[in-house]
Amino acid sequence: MSNPENSTFYLQSQKGRITIANSNSGEFNLPEIEPLLLDDEVLPRAPSSPSFRVLGVNMRIVDNKKVHNTGRYKNTNLIVRRNKEFIIDIRFDRPFNIMEDTVEVEFLIGSSPDVNRGTYITVSFGKDKGDMIWRCRVLNTNGNEVTVGITPDTGCIVGRFRTFVAIVRGLAKQRTPKNPDTDVYVLFNPWDSADQVYMSKESDRQEYVLNDVGVIFNGEINNMSSRPWNYGQFEKGVLDACLLVLDSGKVPLVYRGNVTEVVRQGSALMNSQDDDGVLVGNWSGDYAIGTSPTAWTGSPEILLKYAREDAVPVCFAQCWVYAGVMNTFLRCLGIPARVITNYNSAHDNNGNLKTDIMLDEDGKVNRSRTRDSVWNYHCWNEVYMKRTDLPQKFSGWQVVDSTPQETSDGLYRCGPTSVTAIKEGELSYPFDGKFVFAELNSDVVYHQIDKYGKTKILHVDTTYVGKRVVTKLINSNQYEDVTSTYKYPEGSKSDKQAMQMAESRGVPSREYDDPGEAGVDIQLQANTIKVGEDFKLTMHINNQTSKRCTINATITGSVVFYTGVTSTTVKQETRQATVEAWKTENLLIDVRATEYMAHLVEQSNLLFVVNGRIQETGVTLTRMRVVTLRPPELTILVSGSPQVGKDFTVIVEFRNLFNFALEDVQLRLDSPGLIQTKFKSYKQILPGGVLQYTESITPLNPGKRVLIAGLDCARLRQVTNQLEIDILAV
Amino acid sequence: MSNPENSTFYLQSQKGRITIANSNSGEFNLPEIEPLLLDDEVLPRAPSSPSFRVLGVNMRIVDNKKVHNTGRYKNTNLIVRRNKEFIIDIRFDRPFNIMEDTVEVEFLIGSSPDVNRGTYITVSFGKDKGDMIWRCRVLNTNGNEVTVGITPDTGCIVGRFRTFVAIVRGLAKQRTPKNPDTDVYVLFNPWDSADQVYMSKESDRQEYVLNDVGVIFNGEINNMSSRPWNYGQFEKGVLDACLLVLDSGKVPLVYRGNVTEVVRQGSALMNSQDDDGVLVGNWSGDYAIGTSPTAWTGSPEILLKYAREDAVPVCFAQCWVYAGVMNTFLRCLGIPARVITNYNSAHDNNGNLKTDIMLDEDGKVNRSRTRDSVWNYHCWNEVYMKRTDLPQKFSGWQVVDSTPQETSDGLYRCGPTSVTAIKEGELSYPFDGKFVFAELNSDVVYHQIDKYGKTKILHVDTTYVGKRVVTKLINSNQYEDVTSTYKYPEGSKSDKQAMQMAESRGVPSREYDDPGEAGVDIQLQANTIKVGEDFKLTMHINNQTSKRCTINATITGSVVFYTGVTSTTVKQETRQATVEAWKTENLLIDVRATEYMAHLVEQSNLLFVVNGRIQETGVTLTRMRVVTLRPPELTILVSGSPQVGKDFTVIVEFRNLFNFALEDVQLRLDSPGLIQTKFKSYKQILPGGVLQYTESITPLNPGKRVLIAGLDCARLRQVTNQLEIDILAV
Repeated sequence: MSNPENSTFYLQSQKGRITIANSNSGEFNLPEIEPLLLDDEVLPRAPSSPSFRVLGVNMRIVDNKKVHNTGRYKNTNLIVRRNKEFIIDIRFDRPFNIMEDTVEVEFLIGSSPDVNRGTYITVSFGKDKGDMIWRCRVLNTNGNEVTVGITPDTGCIVGRFRTFVAIVRGLAKQRTPKNPDTDVYVLFNPWDSADQVYMSKESDRQEYVLNDVGVIFNGEINNMSSRPWNYGQFEKGVLDACLLVLDSGKVPLVYRGNVTEVVRQGSALMNSQDDDGVLVGNWSGDYAIGTSPTAWTGSPEILLKYAREDAVPVCFAQCWVYAGVMNTFLRCLGIPARVITNYNSAHDNNGNLKTDIMLDEDGKVNRSRTRDSVWNYHCWNEVYMKRTDLPQKFSGWQVVDSTPQETSDGLYRCGPTSVTAIKEGELSYPFDGKFVFAELNSDVVYHQIDKYGKTKILHVDTTYVGKRVVTKLINSNQYEDVTSTYKYPEGSKSDKQAMQMAESRGVPSREYDDPGEAGVDIQLQANTIKVGEDFKLTMHINNQTSKRCTINATITGSVVFYTGVTSTTVKQETRQATVEAWKTENLLIDVRATEYMAHLVEQSNLLFVVNGRIQETGVTLTRMRVVTLRPPELTILVSGSPQVGKDFTVIVEFRNLFNFALEDVQLRLDSPGLIQTKFKSYKQILPGGVLQYTESITPLNPGKRVLIAGLDCARLRQVTNQLEIDILAV
Repeated sequence: MSNPENSTFYLQSQKGRITIANSNSGEFNLPEIEPLLLDDEVLPRAPSSPSFRVLGVNMRIVDNKKVHNTGRYKNTNLIVRRNKEFIIDIRFDRPFNIMEDTVEVEFLIGSSPDVNRGTYITVSFGKDKGDMIWRCRVLNTNGNEVTVGITPDTGCIVGRFRTFVAIVRGLAKQRTPKNPDTDVYVLFNPWDSADQVYMSKESDRQEYVLNDVGVIFNGEINNMSSRPWNYGQFEKGVLDACLLVLDSGKVPLVYRGNVTEVVRQGSALMNSQDDDGVLVGNWSGDYAIGTSPTAWTGSPEILLKYAREDAVPVCFAQCWVYAGVMNTFLRCLGIPARVITNYNSAHDNNGNLKTDIMLDEDGKVNRSRTRDSVWNYHCWNEVYMKRTDLPQKFSGWQVVDSTPQETSDGLYRCGPTSVTAIKEGELSYPFDGKFVFAELNSDVVYHQIDKYGKTKILHVDTTYVGKRVVTKLINSNQYEDVTSTYKYPEGSKSDKQAMQMAESRGVPSREYDDPGEAGVDIQLQANTIKVGEDFKLTMHINNQTSKRCTINATITGSVVFYTGVTSTTVKQETRQATVEAWKTENLLIDVRATEYMAHLVEQSNLLFVVNGRIQETGVTLTRMRVVTLRPPELTILVSGSPQVGKDFTVIVEFRNLFNFALEDVQLRLDSPGLIQTKFKSYKQILPGGVLQYTESITPLNPGKRVLIAGLDCARLRQVTNQLEIDILAV
């Protein structure tokens, strides 16, 4: 009679329960000789006839990678995609006899490989073929060598498999010894129509799976800007780092063939909350113990640091860093992905689809009572996939957001949620439709607090949030406007139907006693302004009534984080204007650099709120406007025309035009496929001083490359530039 | 210009971000005198006319509790239900003038009360009424006293609110000081048709909300048994313990008015995985460092221990303990709930809806290759609620499962998921429909492993799992069969449609090459057997063919946990039988107590697997059967007829009929509404020895009560009994 302790797999601590595997790595391997009799009394012994042995296995790495679209991965192992055949050669010590011999090729993943879990795959050929999940066929026999085609199944786990070849004879199996060189990575397959991530257009796949560089849009809606980002999914070590992310997040292996699960878990694992995820979020302005979120130029530096330091979270990130690294993670595993920017993005703390801005009687934002905020932009990812768990129409692009804003069902993560479902207001379906819907559709409600602490609604802006949603255009650094994939036109019949659907799915209905503002409107306007410049803010008053109106307006300017949280108030001015019937009037407000420079926080945003009272009617108007100040320029120059095998020089130049010194300045130069991230720090750049950094590069491969440079210090964040170069063949 | 550090609410560590409140307790309170001018330069000062003051507040606790169905809570504070008026009296130092005076009643919850979050509620009456979320009306004025009716809104947060009364005059508010006696608990309201938990029938509410005792079904489907359970939701300290569960789980206050959220979070917080939840699961058989799961008689002992020890998880639980404590948590907060038992319940590790049982060639379960298990029963809860987040038809009973089986979306929890959705195969909707569907609908697939390690399917049993789902009947300790609420009849057209729907929602389709077994069937049968008895197992062979058949059968008996994980093999016997055409035959297999007694694990289950080969056809038949051995009896006796104010005696008696001593025996006596759990331990009960425990009780209130007794020790688990008594009035 057997005893539970005899079993290798048996769970020690919880005898009555069973556990599951959640790590790709793990040292479970198979014996080189395995006896087949199950009777305990027969001891392992060598096979009776020792003449048939495996001498070698050729994984045909270069050829296979080419047809599997994995040739760009800087990784010496074979990398294939699901449901596509790869070809290997097996060499024996005598000719293979298809009628007599049975050969098995085994693929193992994790530390407790299990046939019923897809973690122990066996394919066989020859006499005694068993049932197979992966397909296998003999393509050719040539002397002692057999060429075999093997096709992983379309739902196969994605990760690194260990390969063994076993000969089955008599009472034993004889296996090749463990050999990491024959390990094979299996990835998702956007080229295969049966795969959950299938994309039909090659141009889409080139951009969303194979492009390793891009731009991420930021700034604010009236003054959009962008920064380059090195996704670098093919860089050396990045694929292993992505698998490490799944391992350190203990994502069960059985889930790793399901894109929905990989994406959702990935979203949780990009941030360090709840788990040892990749990046530590920090919005404090103090980044001394790490790298400031604005200083990074791409994902490989972050992922490789994470891997090098055994999954210790990397400091620090804000939304575009999360979205950038997530994009790398997804593309690296073969999941089509892109980075999205939403101008303006609500962060709805309690799911009521209202962003409440509380103003004091003097028009200033009351910071202690304002608990919601509107981010002037927010970045997330979209992934393209079939949602096998949902009705068919919800397949296609899905939102996934790795920035830890709110816990989603207990953990910091968000999505995947169908873009179509958001547009239709179909918010019952997993995951996190309501949160994303709120990011795009919240109303901004301005309240005034009176001296008794009582509040009244001043104004409701139903169009401020989710005004424009963009992503990088294919083959271009310009933006593609994808707003219409998320929303019907404001006020259209379909828009109203979508809102009704959302309400029937638990979104609170929004009705306000919005005080009428009939006929008079205010807008705040500003041109593009550079950090350090004096500028004029225009208050544009449009009187569309038949009566003259007199407005008393208080304009308050605050420094503001890109998350909409206000910091120091830098400007407060009261102005009066009289506007004749059917006329417009512009008031100019002077803002001096000396007023704001000392108080700026990262990304250099100013928030202006105007609170105007029309004397004749007693109606109060409230508007806000974020002004993003442009950082100074960083120049990238290349000397000569780059060519394979020849040195060329890159010069990055920056001139400090401020009247103060910049201290502890970080400079990065990055170029996926060309160099690893170069980093240099400078103690000080004096006023008027020029920084010049020179790098000599010898390209190994021809083709287009992008040089990305970034400069960052406490007083000046997010100074970036990029330059496309074409490396000529020899 | 202001400075961020001046603000009380301002988040220190993450300047650019905002946090949310997640604790009911918390010491934020309001000043007794609050100046109303916002101008910083006016200092706080006493109100100008000091003649109008609040002298006292009468919460009318007894009367209010009666009409709010909260009179049974052993708690000295007011407890009300949402959207139902409660009445309080406020006494001033002079008559209240409705045309002149303004009075506010404020209700605060948590440490950062916020008007926009529902954590700072103000109602007012008199001259200057503001907008109100809770309703308020003056019912009567009588001299210096005003009687006010206050109605919490229907979506109100559930928890303990602090009450203040403030007089608003001139430039200040004057408040009553903090007084815990006026704290008021707000609960969900199943009596109110607007509430998310509304139940229309009073008999349902009496059972599912107000019944504080019940039975939980266990055993196995052919031999169902039950154990009594003290839910004790009204016991002293239990309501506070339930709120502590939410606090220690950091459930944001804003979610605590949403039943779906409270239920889901509650399911995560019953178990200690991921968080400091209430109960530590243990299926190891070794419970020395805590209380064995079988030893508990009810929830109050567990919840009060958890509260007393500052939210340190309590050791130990298995499924019925989780379901029992969860039931208390839900009923206590006003959520209709019941405990469900599913015979047999699949634990599907990888969501493929197959439970793979791997048999060796000799018919024994191969423990190392069998990674799935079928629990012979499994308990979960159902809660009754409107699912505002889903299409209407999915409201009603919802499954919620607190036993940590699999992580649901990253945490150990499960549900709520609509019973209707399970039945219809509508598995896209949150939460965890697929997992629950698998518990009820998995197929059991028997594989045989040959000596090469290759497997073949022997038999597929599509009916073994989810055969019967039961709960306690209203007003009875018998069971109600609710299987038809979860499943259409096996094989019916609707059943097929539900399976198709499930497959279109991502459940893998199940097709097998099931070897035909045409015409011959085996069943294993056993009568009710007591632990320690010898018994006979009947192998019933039914030959429904026109030919004689000869069967060679191997019967293997193992000790098994109720989770389906097998332990020691205690029996293995090979038998042959010949059955004539159209006849049946019974083979009897003797099982002796000496064979199994030394190996029994808790709950005394034996698993018999028969593996028979029909000589004439080569067809193999496999069946399994769990045999639950009944524990010996525990007797509860009462002397005399219990009456209010008079002593009576309860005697609990147990006789050790085994031929071995029972050691470290725990005895519990419990009776909600009558006594707190009494606990006694005995070093040893010798063979033939009798344990007699006597307790003298003086009832304070008349009515029906249930006495629950339980005895537990390592060699004998789950010996329980109950007795209903009627306490006469004086």
